[in-house]
Order: sequence, then structure tokens, then C-alpha cells
Amino acid sequence: MGAKVAVLMGSRSDLPVLEKCFETLKEFGIEFEGRVLSAHRTPEEAAEFARSAERRGIKVFICAAGMAAHLAGVMASFTTLPVIGIPIASEPFNGIDSLLSMVQMPPGIPVAVVSAGKAGAQNAALLAVSIIATSDSGLSARLKEYRERQKAKVLAADKELSQSLEMK
Amino acid sequence: MGAKVAVLMGSRSDLPVLEKCFETLKEFGIEFEGRVLSAHRTPEEAAEFARSAERRGIKVFICAAGMAAHLAGVMASFTTLPVIGIPIASEPFNGIDSLLSMVQMPPGIPVAVVSAGKAGAQNAALLAVSIIATSDSGLSARLKEYRERQKAKVLAADKELSQSLEMK
Amino acid sequence: MGAKVAVLMGSRSDLPVLEKCFETLKEFGIEFEGRVLSAHRTPEEAAEFARSAERRGIKVFICAAGMAAHLAGVMASFTTLPVIGIPIASEPFNGIDSLLSMVQMPPGIPVAVVSAGKAGAQNAALLAVSIIATSDSGLSARLKEYRERQKAKVLAADKELSQSLEMK
Amino acid sequence: MGAKVAVLMGSRSDLPVLEKCFETLKEFGIEFEGRVLSAHRTPEEAAEFARSAERRGIKVFICAAGMAAHLAGVMASFTTLPVIGIPIASEPFNGIDSLLSMVQMPPGIPVAVVSAGKAGAQNAALLAVSIIATSDSGLSARLKEYRERQKAKVLAADKELSQSLEMK
Amino acid sequence: MGAKVAVLMGSRSDLPVLEKCFETLKEFGIEFEGRVLSAHRTPEEAAEFARSAERRGIKVFICAAGMAAHLAGVMASFTTLPVIGIPIASEPFNGIDSLLSMVQMPPGIPVAVVSAGKAGAQNAALLAVSIIATSDSGLSARLKEYRERQKAKVLAADKELSQSLEMK
Amino acid sequence: MGAKVAVLMGSRSDLPVLEKCFETLKEFGIEFEGRVLSAHRTPEEAAEFARSAERRGIKVFICAAGMAAHLAGVMASFTTLPVIGIPIASEPFNGIDSLLSMVQMPPGIPVAVVSAGKAGAQNAALLAVSIIATSDSGLSARLKEYRERQKAKVLAADKELSQSLEMK
Amino acid sequence: MGAKVAVLMGSRSDLPVLEKCFETLKEFGIEFEGRVLSAHRTPEEAAEFARSAERRGIKVFICAAGMAAHLAGVMASFTTLPVIGIPIASEPFNGIDSLLSMVQMPPGIPVAVVSAGKAGAQNAALLAVSIIATSDSGLSARLKEYRERQKAKVLAADKELSQSLEMK
Amino acid sequence: MGAKVAVLMGSRSDLPVLEKCFETLKEFGIEFEGRVLSAHRTPEEAAEFARSAERRGIKVFICAAGMAAHLAGVMASFTTLPVIGIPIASEPFNGIDSLLSMVQMPPGIPVAVVSAGKAGAQNAALLAVSIIATSDSGLSARLKEYRERQKAKVLAADKELSQSLEMK
Repeated sequence: MGAKVAVLMGSRSDLPVLEKCFETLKEFGIEFEGRVLSAHRTPEEAAEFARSAERRGIKVFICAAGMAAHLAGVMASFTTLPVIGIPIASEPFNGIDSLLSMVQMPPGIPVAVVSAGKAGAQNAALLAVSIIATSDSGLSARLKEYRERQKAKVLAADKELSQSLEMK
Repeated sequence: MGAKVAVLMGSRSDLPVLEKCFETLKEFGIEFEGRVLSAHRTPEEAAEFARSAERRGIKVFICAAGMAAHLAGVMASFTTLPVIGIPIASEPFNGIDSLLSMVQMPPGIPVAVVSAGKAGAQNAALLAVSIIATSDSGLSARLKEYRERQKAKVLAADKELSQSLEMK
Repeated sequence: MGAKVAVLMGSRSDLPVLEKCFETLKEFGIEFEGRVLSAHRTPEEAAEFARSAERRGIKVFICAAGMAAHLAGVMASFTTLPVIGIPIASEPFNGIDSLLSMVQMPPGIPVAVVSAGKAGAQNAALLAVSIIATSDSGLSARLKEYRERQKAKVLAADKELSQSLEMK
Repeated sequence: MGAKVAVLMGSRSDLPVLEKCFETLKEFGIEFEGRVLSAHRTPEEAAEFARSAERRGIKVFICAAGMAAHLAGVMASFTTLPVIGIPIASEPFNGIDSLLSMVQMPPGIPVAVVSAGKAGAQNAALLAVSIIATSDSGLSARLKEYRERQKAKVLAADKELSQSLEMK
Repeated sequence: MGAKVAVLMGSRSDLPVLEKCFETLKEFGIEFEGRVLSAHRTPEEAAEFARSAERRGIKVFICAAGMAAHLAGVMASFTTLPVIGIPIASEPFNGIDSLLSMVQMPPGIPVAVVSAGKAGAQNAALLAVSIIATSDSGLSARLKEYRERQKAKVLAADKELSQSLEMK
Repeated sequence: MGAKVAVLMGSRSDLPVLEKCFETLKEFGIEFEGRVLSAHRTPEEAAEFARSAERRGIKVFICAAGMAAHLAGVMASFTTLPVIGIPIASEPFNGIDSLLSMVQMPPGIPVAVVSAGKAGAQNAALLAVSIIATSDSGLSARLKEYRERQKAKVLAADKELSQSLEMK
Repeated sequence: MGAKVAVLMGSRSDLPVLEKCFETLKEFGIEFEGRVLSAHRTPEEAAEFARSAERRGIKVFICAAGMAAHLAGVMASFTTLPVIGIPIASEPFNGIDSLLSMVQMPPGIPVAVVSAGKAGAQNAALLAVSIIATSDSGLSARLKEYRERQKAKVLAADKELSQSLEMK
Repeated sequence: MGAKVAVLMGSRSDLPVLEKCFETLKEFGIEFEGRVLSAHRTPEEAAEFARSAERRGIKVFICAAGMAAHLAGVMASFTTLPVIGIPIASEPFNGIDSLLSMVQMPPGIPVAVVSAGKAGAQNAALLAVSIIATSDSGLSARLKEYRERQKAKVLAADKELSQSLEMK
């Protein structure tokens, strides 16, 4: 079966930020496509990708971009599928430019923005999973197990800290 | 059938901002619950609401809050359903506080943040519709028609402007 | 002869901000088209407008938009003509969102951003005139006269202030 | 006797920032618990900790967190004890996100926010000491001595500077 | 018995912001002094007030100030009692100046900063009450009842909203 | 033939940022002058340069400056030629100071601001080329070819990514 | 005798902000000139004014300007007399643009920036007086009396507040 | 003869930033005192220093401080001599905290703020020299020569750049 999530980045240099996104989607067994598409340098290809995505089976878009980050907005203007945006920080404005360029979409064309950078890459994957899980109870169950593992890690860190403080 | 979308606000005073959200959900025939729940003043009730939502049929949360806007984050910590956040502006920091409080969620617990204020209220509804539409092709079709109506309005405004400029 | 400057706005509501832009272009006898085109709601029409502009004789684009202001960037992605952006302020982030969304274009696709709001509307028109004047010495001369009139106004205000202070 | 101050962090990685906090509490002989508790990943445990703290003898909470820093707010929503927040800076927004997420609490649920990062870690400890000292005159006296030692250090640095400048 | 809380403002014009602070302290039966003292225009009087407060029975300071808000910091430099700061917004920087001037205290001299403006005025009073309540179990009980009343108000607003939505 | 573009920098230390600007102008065969001129340290020379530029054949100014970046504004006050500004980031305000100092020109004296730093250096050159190309169809054609090469690079990166993802 | 202080504004519209500046200079019997001079629209006149000021007896410049506020910097580039800058707020960036444009002068050319707006207008006058008073002991004495009157006003407001609180 | 300029820093760690300040004062033969005085840790000593400075011959204060930078404001509250502030950047807010804490002084108590960091250290010294030079024509002449040397350096850099570009 084909990919359900399209993961787009405005530039090849955004790839390291997205590693946790790919990894998380794989952890949930979600098929995805990874693409480099620039809202500004390849506008026709970007538009064509957005228009054709739904009939190829894509359910959710994840778009990572920096600076005047228009990639998520361009996708959202050509599709009615959910579009998730990950603001990427760059010099010198450290991501406040991409956050505002992504989140402040005009009424009528929503983009779902998550945390900037690597935290956002993981959260974008989890948000995509949660969207697909609204009609896939098996996936929903795996999402709940993932949460339990997250919780277990915090509790383990908590236990370790308590012990190290007691020993002092 | 029960509600599919839970629309929460941190305070009754956020209601006017949300009007377009309710209206848009109705336009698509989506059943919703509207609730006033405070992350800080009614934490137990908020947690209980989040935990029980999925089994009552809720598919998506929409949370509007201002200041240190924790409501969406609290919901997201108790559910694995998609949670959408609408930053509400308030004096004196004009919404930059609620935007950052909502969007900068730690890795593992995503919140999907849309535009601040009324634009965000409409977009949150449309995002919720697009999420439910990933498994409802009829709804997906209505979403595409909505887009066409949006486009028609812009084209009408464009025509009107062209005529008014020619007459001058 | 056809229009040389295309003045685009993302929404009809941006029109009042642009009055001084239209007025200034008229003062210099520059033909222009005024259009409402949304980067997000009418992406196909916006792209088509950008692609066809040059062969219709357009020399310069002026784009006014608010929020995640992508209109100038979208134009710039479909044309190699100079594109000028005017950031429009809106609630609650007061134009810092549109300034950053316009100015922080990725390498390769420039947008020329001027002051936010009404000051920018006048300056965008003057910048467009100065661009066309690089190959039109008559227009260049009129631009210098315009500057002299600006100077004369400041000197008159200065004289008036000196007199009012002396009388006290 | 049991701990009087609970020092919580949202993630084990916040520990280095808190060193001066632990050290300062020890310097004053204040018993404390150090815990890793996440507002978002372990919401039930966080709530339970907050609810049970008072009867275990806790007098003051100190909470350090980054990004959308909800930990202090969550504690404050489940206890009426004083809650002190230390904003932790993280990439890319450098702590302005955690400062606003902590300080802009809604009316009715206060959080006492101190400086960001290491300066705040020391100040949070001193603020906790000053709160306990409102009913402990011995502790109050030790706080005054601590101030005298701080002053002496500045005066020594001043003297050293004066001498080094004279020698040049 | 004398006042336990000193409520200081940098200027008489800050008084309206503080109304909820006075009202909340009265609701808890906490005696307080209200003073206008300027860190910059009456530095000697401010210092003298801070130095003498503890022996007059003051337990907590609340300081409201705008612009380069040094009042809380000046108090904190002359006393080891807990000092709470309320940032007051003023033209043109809307309180970000007073927030940073208050919260970013150097290591060694803490100030406890709450929300800006009226929300902060109420929260400063509640924080002062919670500090005094650390050694006053009766007051602690009244604080818990206050919380219950807050919760009841939210639940009533919630009920009212549910009913109004059902009737539509 | 003489230079058509004047590339000015406020300080010799801005030179590394401008490399891509010089390189891009060369790629298009545009003659340019590179100058170090300070709005503040050499105001007479800066004014004289601006006044004499047009008769020496200059068509467009590019000005790079940091901090209170007045260089572009000073040029614009002495010439009616198009003036492009590149904000340069410096410690500690990271370019927000130079962006606002450049872009917020008063009505009547436009400056065309592009992205901050190296991205802006390339974009300033391309904007200058596009301005000159409004009356040079050969240059306009080369600009379109440049765009095609940009597009080809993105498509190649896209292909490479797709392959690397498939291999995993 | 001639004026000792030159008070310049970039636009006649800045006059209301400067009232307290004129009033304060008069209160100290300091002769001043008030001028409207634009760094951008009348650069020659501004430069000539700056160059000739010292030999006409001017001791200090006060410059009020908004947006990309270059007026103070231009004065400072043509004179070695002290130059004081008052940032004026304007839509939409509320003075952060003029503050940064004024204060971030490059090494070698200082501008002395005071508070934004009306508070700054009064403070600029007082700073000018304090500068002239460094060689005028009579003026220095009057400055100390002015401070005493300021103090008296705060103490009167304090007394009035205490009485009004007691009566409640 | 005694010192004419008092150079104060809030912490010994600010010394490296001030090197250029000391160096510049020496270059002009201005006697100065360098002191470490903390507004918060040594408030009595700071006040005493400010009160006694004038009668010891001090003409101008220079104060460098970071975070909630109150040092300049405290000096200004105890003296009517001109007080110059240098904002020092520190983690995590990079000097925007100290800039606003210094510049936004309330009406009546001016502080003259210069650029942040090392640029400001040099400018503070030059501003102090220009203030003393208002009554010292020899010093005024040396200041003009200093400017000429600055100009010569820029012109030399300009010449060097022109040559290096020609050689390419």
C-alpha cells in the first residue's frame, strides 16, 4: 500500500531536524514519502504534489521550513487534507520568522503548527499518527502504549534522581 | 449521535472569539460540545473530561485560551486524540504569551496550533473538519466545496475592485 | 498602453491602506492594475496572474498582505520581475508577522520589503517609480521634483514651528 | 524531619541548571526533595504529588521547566502552597517561551517567577528560604548573614578592581 | 495588630490596577499598608521603608511598577522578606519593559514576579496570603475555600454555556 | 563601460556576508563598485557618493549594514535611484535592530529591504539584476535561466532524498 | 544670548510629544531652538544645521523621531556635541523600531537615548540641563531643587493614599 | 587632580566589556575611577557613592550592567549629574532585558543609554568626553581630531577594498 503521510522540507539542509519525524512514523508502521520541495524555487512542482496527493492515498502533510516558511501554507492552499507545519530555526531570527510565517494563516486555510525544530519533528509525526488513528483503533491503541513508554521513562529518570540525591 | 468535536475555552470571556468556530462546525454538520474548563481552576474536571472524551465519541479537541494558555497542553496530556489550540490575545502581551505557551509543547505531546484569535477560531474548525474528513469522503467533498466558495468570494472582490478602479 | 505596475492585495480589507499607493502612482502618470488575489484562497489565479504579467507589459509588482503574508513570495516564485512587499498590520501581532513572512525570503527568490502600512504604501509606489525610472529619464526627473516638493513641505513646517515658538 | 521544599524539574536535562538551587538550600539546612515530573508526560503523578505535598510537610514548591513550561502552573492548580517557577532557556526561543508560559498565570492561581536559568535557580532557593523564614527567626537571621557575605564579595571585587586600575 | 503586607506602587496612577489586590487581601482579613514610593524620586524614603518594615511586623512586600520597574528590586535589596512584583503595562512597550526589569534580578536578590496588570494584582495578593499561610493553618484553610469558590464559578459558567448551546 | 550597481558596506567586517552578492552580480555580468562607507563616520563622503552616483552610471544601490543601520537610508536621502538594504546581524540583538532601522523608512524615502545576512546578499544581487532587467531583455532571459538552474538543484536534491529513503 | 539647546523633530506631528521638553527647558531658563528637520527629506539642511550649531553656541542636541529614527544619528555624525535621542512610538511597531534605530549606534558615534515618548521628552530636557550644569553651579542647584519638588509630589501622593486607605 | 568620570559595573565579570571605555577615556586624558558596585547587593554603598560623587569632583557617571540593570537608575536617583548606561548582554535574553531596564526610566530621572556591549563601552566614554568638552574647548578639539582619525580608518578600508576588488 502507498504512503499515508507526505513529509516535505523546503531544503535538503532541513533533513537532520526531521530524523525523529521519520523514526517516529516508522515506529508506528506508517508509510511515508519524504520530499524536498520549495514553495519558492519549485512552485509548480509543489502545487502539483499537493493537488495529486489525496488521490495517491496521502492522508496528512508534514512540512518543515525555515525563514519566511511558506511551504506549509502553499500545500494548504492546494489541498484540503490536514497540513502540519514544523518551524525550523535559522540565523539570525532563530525561528520566530518561520513560526509566525506558518501559524498566522488567514481565515479559511488552516495549518497545524507544532513546536520548532527537533521537538516539533517528533510531535508532527505523533500528530499525524493521532489524525490517522481517529479512524484506526489499532493505531490508537499503539499511540496509548507509546504514551505509557514516555511516562515510564520520566518515572525512571525520577527514580534515578531521587536515589542520586539520597546518596549525597 | 453524540458530539465529535469538543470545543473548550479557558474562560467564558473567550466565547465571542469562538463564534466563527461554532458556526463553521455547524455549516459542516459536525456535532460538537462547547465547554468552559480551566486548566488551573478546574484541573480535576479538565483531566476527567480529557480522559473520558474518546469513549464518548469525541474525535478532536479544540482549545482556546489566553495568557499562559495551558488548556490545550493539559488536554493533550490526558488524551491521544488530536488537540487543536487557538491562542487568544489579552492585555498587555497581545497573544504572544498564549501562542508560545501553546505551540512550544515538549517532544511527545503534540498540540496543533492555528492562527491567533478569530482567524484561528475559523481555522480550528476547518482543521477539525479536515481531520474527521480523512475517514469521511462525503465530508471531504463538502470541504472542497467550501474552498470553492471561499475562492469565489475573493474573485468577486477582485472583480468589484477592478470595476471601481476603472470607473475612477 | 497597458499597466506597468500590478498592485495586489490579499484581501479587499487592505484597500484603505493602499490609497496613497494608487494616488502616488497616478501622480507620476504610471498605469497600474489593482487586484485582489489571495495566495491561499486563489492560488491558481495568483500563479496565473504572476506568470502572465510580464507579457502583458507589467514591469513591477506591489503586494500588500497581512498575517502570514505569502502573497509577495508567491508572486516572486512565478516571475522574475521585481516584487515589492508592503507588510500590513493586523490583530494581535501588529505586523511583525507579515514583516517577517515577507522579508525573510530564501536565497534565490528576492522580495523588496518597504515600511509597514500606509508609509509603506507610499514608499512602494515611489520604489516602483524609481525602478521604472532607471530606463526613463523623464520619470527620473519627475521623481527628483517630487523630492524637492517633499523637502519644501518639511522646510515650511520648520519655518512655521520657528515662528510659533518665537511668538510664545 | 521531612522535606520542606519540593524541587521539581520537567526533564532530567534541567538538572545542571538547578545545582545552585540544591546547594543554596543545603547551605541553609533546608530539607528538600528533588523530583523529575512532567506536566505533560506524567500528568497523574504530577497532580498526585501536588495534592499530597502539603500533608507530607512541604511548605514551598520550586519548579524548573523549559519551552511551554506548564509544570509550575500544574502544581499551582493542585495546591495552595507557594509555587516558584524558574524559566529554563532552550533552542530556539531562548527562554522567552518558558518565561511567558510561567508568569502569565490567570487570575486566581499565582506562580512566583524568578530570573531565567542559573541565576533563577539560586534566587528560587533564596525566595523559598525567605518564605519559610517568615515564621522562623533563626532562618531569617541566617538569610541576613548570607546577604552580608554577598555584600562582602562585591566589596572585595571592588577593592581588587580599584587596586588593579591604580597599578596600571 | 499592625499590617502584615506592604503594598507599594511607583506612582499614584498605578492605583486602579491594584484594586483587586487590596480587595483580595481584605477578603482574607490580612492587614496591609498601601504606599506610593518611587525607587527613583524618593530613593531614601524607599530604602528606609524597606529597612524598617520587618520590625514593624511586615511579612511580605507587593510592589507594582511600570517602565524600568526598579521598585521591587530596590525593596529586595534592603530587606530579606519575600518581595512580590507586579509588572504594570505602559505606553509604548506594553509591559515587556517592566516584566524584564522585575524578573531578571541578579543571583542573590530574588523578586517573585506574577502576571502583568490586574491579573497580577489579584495573584500577588493570593501569593502573599499563601506565604503567610505557610505558618497559619486557619488562613491556609480559607485559601482552600477560596479555590473552591473559584472552581464553582467556572463550573457555573460551564453549565450556563452548555445550556445556551443546547437551546440554539 | 562603468559600474551599474554600487555595493556599499558600513564596515569592512561586513565583507564576508557580501561574497554571494559580488559572485551573483558577476554571474550575470553586471559591473559593480564595492565600497566601505559609513553613514556615521564618513557622512560627507557617503553623501557625495550618493549624489554623484547617477551621473557616473549607477542604476541601483545595495547597502549592507548592522546595528542602527542608517547607510541605506542615508543613500536613499541623497538619490532617487532604487536603494536595496541588507540587514546584517550583530551581537547582541541579532539583526532585529538593523532590520527595523532599514525597513521602517518614513513616507517619501523608500528602501527595499531583503532577507538578513547571506541569504539577503544573494537576494539583493538578484533584485538589482531584476531591476536592471526591466529594460534589458537579454538580462531578463538570463534571470529566467538562473531560476531554472535553482529549480533543477531542488529537484536533484528531491530525487536524491527519495532514493536514500527507499534504500533504508 | 543665543540658544544652548537645539530641539529637533523629524516631523511636525512629533510636536505634541515634545511639549514637556520645551516646558522643562523653560522652567530652567535654558534658551532653545525648536526645529523640524528630516534626516531623509532634508538631509543637506540637517547636515548644515549640525555643522553650524556649535559655533552658534549650541551645547546639546535633542532629537525626537519615529520609525527608522535616523535624525539623532545624522546629527551625531556631523557634530561632536552631545546628542540626546527620544524614540517616538508609531504604528504598528510601537517604538521598538525607533528605540533600536537610535540606541544601536556603531562604535565611535554615540547617541544618548532616553525613555520613549513623553517621559523621554521630559527626561531629555533634564539630561540636557544636567549636561550644561556640569559647568554651571547655579543651574546645578536648580536641578537639585527640581528633584526636591519631584520628591515632594510623590510624598504628597503617598500621604493622600494612606489617608484614603485608612478611611475605607 | 581627582577623577572626573566614575565608571561603575554591577559585577566584576562586566570588566572585559568595559576595556574600550577605559582605553578611550585614557586616550583623552580623562581621569576616572573604576568601581564594582551592585545596585542590589551593595545598595548602601552604591547610594553613598552616588551622593558623594559630585563633591569629589565627578562630572559624569558611566554604568554598565546586565539583566534587570538597575545600577544606572540607582545612581541617577541619588545624583543630578549626567548618568550614562551601557546595557550588557547575558544569557538567555541577550541584553533586551538590560536595554529596557536602563532606558525606560520614569519621567524626572533621566539615564542616557548607549549601544549594548563593547560598542556601547566606547560610545559611553566618547559621550562622557563630549559632555565634559561642553566647557573645555581643548577637549572639544581633541574630540574632533578623534573623529578625523575614525574617518581616516574608514577611508583606508574603503581604498583597500576597492583595490582588492579591482585585482580580482
